[in-house]
Amino acid sequence: MKISELSRRTGVPVASIKYFRREGLLPAGRATAARLAEYGEEHVQRLRLIKALTTLGGLSIAATRDVLAAVDQAETTDGTLRAISYALPVPVTAASAGDAERDADAEAAAEADVTRLIAAMDWKIPDTSPHIRGLAMALRELRRLDADYRPERLVAYAELAHSIARLDLERAAAFDDSPALAEQAVIVLALSGPMLELLRRLAQEDQVRRRSTLDDNPEEGPGDGPR
Amino acid sequence: MKISELSRRTGVPVASIKYFRREGLLPAGRATAARLAEYGEEHVQRLRLIKALTTLGGLSIAATRDVLAAVDQAETTDGTLRAISYALPVPVTAASAGDAERDADAEAAAEADVTRLIAAMDWKIPDTSPHIRGLAMALRELRRLDADYRPERLVAYAELAHSIARLDLERAAAFDDSPALAEQAVIVLALSGPMLELLRRLAQEDQVRRRSTLDDNPEEGPGDGPR
Repeated sequence: MKISELSRRTGVPVASIKYFRREGLLPAGRATAARLAEYGEEHVQRLRLIKALTTLGGLSIAATRDVLAAVDQAETTDGTLRAISYALPVPVTAASAGDAERDADAEAAAEADVTRLIAAMDWKIPDTSPHIRGLAMALRELRRLDADYRPERLVAYAELAHSIARLDLERAAAFDDSPALAEQAVIVLALSGPMLELLRRLAQEDQVRRRSTLDDNPEEGPGDGPR
Repeated sequence: MKISELSRRTGVPVASIKYFRREGLLPAGRATAARLAEYGEEHVQRLRLIKALTTLGGLSIAATRDVLAAVDQAETTDGTLRAISYALPVPVTAASAGDAERDADAEAAAEADVTRLIAAMDWKIPDTSPHIRGLAMALRELRRLDADYRPERLVAYAELAHSIARLDLERAAAFDDSPALAEQAVIVLALSGPMLELLRRLAQEDQVRRRSTLDDNPEEGPGDGPR
C-alpha cells in the first residue's frame, strides 16, 4: 500500500510516518520507484505499536526506539518480556534526579526499606534493576512527606502488585514466540499501568463517596441527589 | 525564618520559591521590612507538598495550583479526598485527545465495557467522572491493539484496584480534619500511583525471571548464576 493508505489505516498522519522513518522507528517500505515505497501489514502493525507506546504509554521517541529494538532483538517471549521490563521508562527517578545527592539519611533508610520488602516478598531481582532505585526514590519522598509513613505497610501493596503482575504475565504469556505476538506483549506490559491507575482512581472515587454518605454531615453537591 | 532558611529546610532553591510565590502556589510571608519577609512552618509544609506534587506526582504548575486550591477550600478530609480525586490529572486522556473523534465504533464498545465493569463492581460513580472517560480511552486502545483483549478480564484488575484504593484510603483516613493533615492525604493519593507502578514492575521482573529459569533453554546472563 502507499503511504497515504498506511496513514488512513493507522490514523497516523503522513508527516508523522515520515518522521518515524527518519528516526529509525519504522522500517523502510519496498521501493517501487524513485520516490515511492510500498508498505505492508508489518508496517501497519509497527505503526500502531509506535502510536500506542508514544501516546498511551507516554514514551519519548528515544524510549520507543529502545523498546522496539529490544522487541526486535529478543529471541523468545520471555527474553522480550525481560528486555521490555528494563527498556520501559521508570517512573519517579527522572523527576527526582535533581536532588539525588541530598538527604542521604532518608535515602539510605528508603533503600533499606526496599531491601527488606524484596526479602519479605522473596522476589528474585538483581541489584542493578532500575526499579529498585526508582522505588527507593519514591519511598524516600514518602519518608520525608508522609507523616504516617510505615514501611511495614508496603507488604500489603507489594502483594497486590504481585497479583497484578501475574494477570499481566498471563495475558502476555498467551502469545507465542513470533515477533508479532511479542509486540502484543509490549502492549500488555506498557498499557496495564495507565489502565490500572484509572481503575484505582475509580475505586478511590467510589470509596470516598461511600464514606461521605456515611458522614454525619454529608456534603452532596446540587444535583447529586440520593441513590 | 528568612527565605534562605526556608530554601535550606526544604531543598527548594530560592529562585523556585519566588516563582511559586509569583504563580500563587505559596502564600506570602509576613512582611518585616520593605523587601524582607518572614516565613513560618506552614511555608515549609506547603513547599514540601508543592515539591512532592511537581516532582514525584509529575504535576504541572497549573495542576498543582488546582490541587492546592482544592485542599484549601475543602472543609473535611472527605471533601478534600473527593476534590483531589477530580483535581489530579487523569492519565491517558490528554495524550489521546488528538484522535478522539476517530474510531467511533471502538470508542462506543470501550464505553460499554466501562459501563458493564462499573455495574459488575457495584461502583457508585457519577457519569461526569473524568476517570470514566479516561478508562474508556485506555480500553479503546487496548481493543484496537491487544489481539487477545477480553473485557471480562477487567474485573480481576478492578478487584485488585479496589483493594489498593482501600489501602490508600485507610492511610488517608488516619489523618484528621486539619488542613495540615488533609495535605498528607494529597501526598498519599498522589504518590501511591508511582509507588504501585514500581512495585508492579518489580513483581513483573521477579515473575519473568522465574519463568525463564523454568525454560528448556534458560537465557541467564553471565554472573547471574544459580540460586
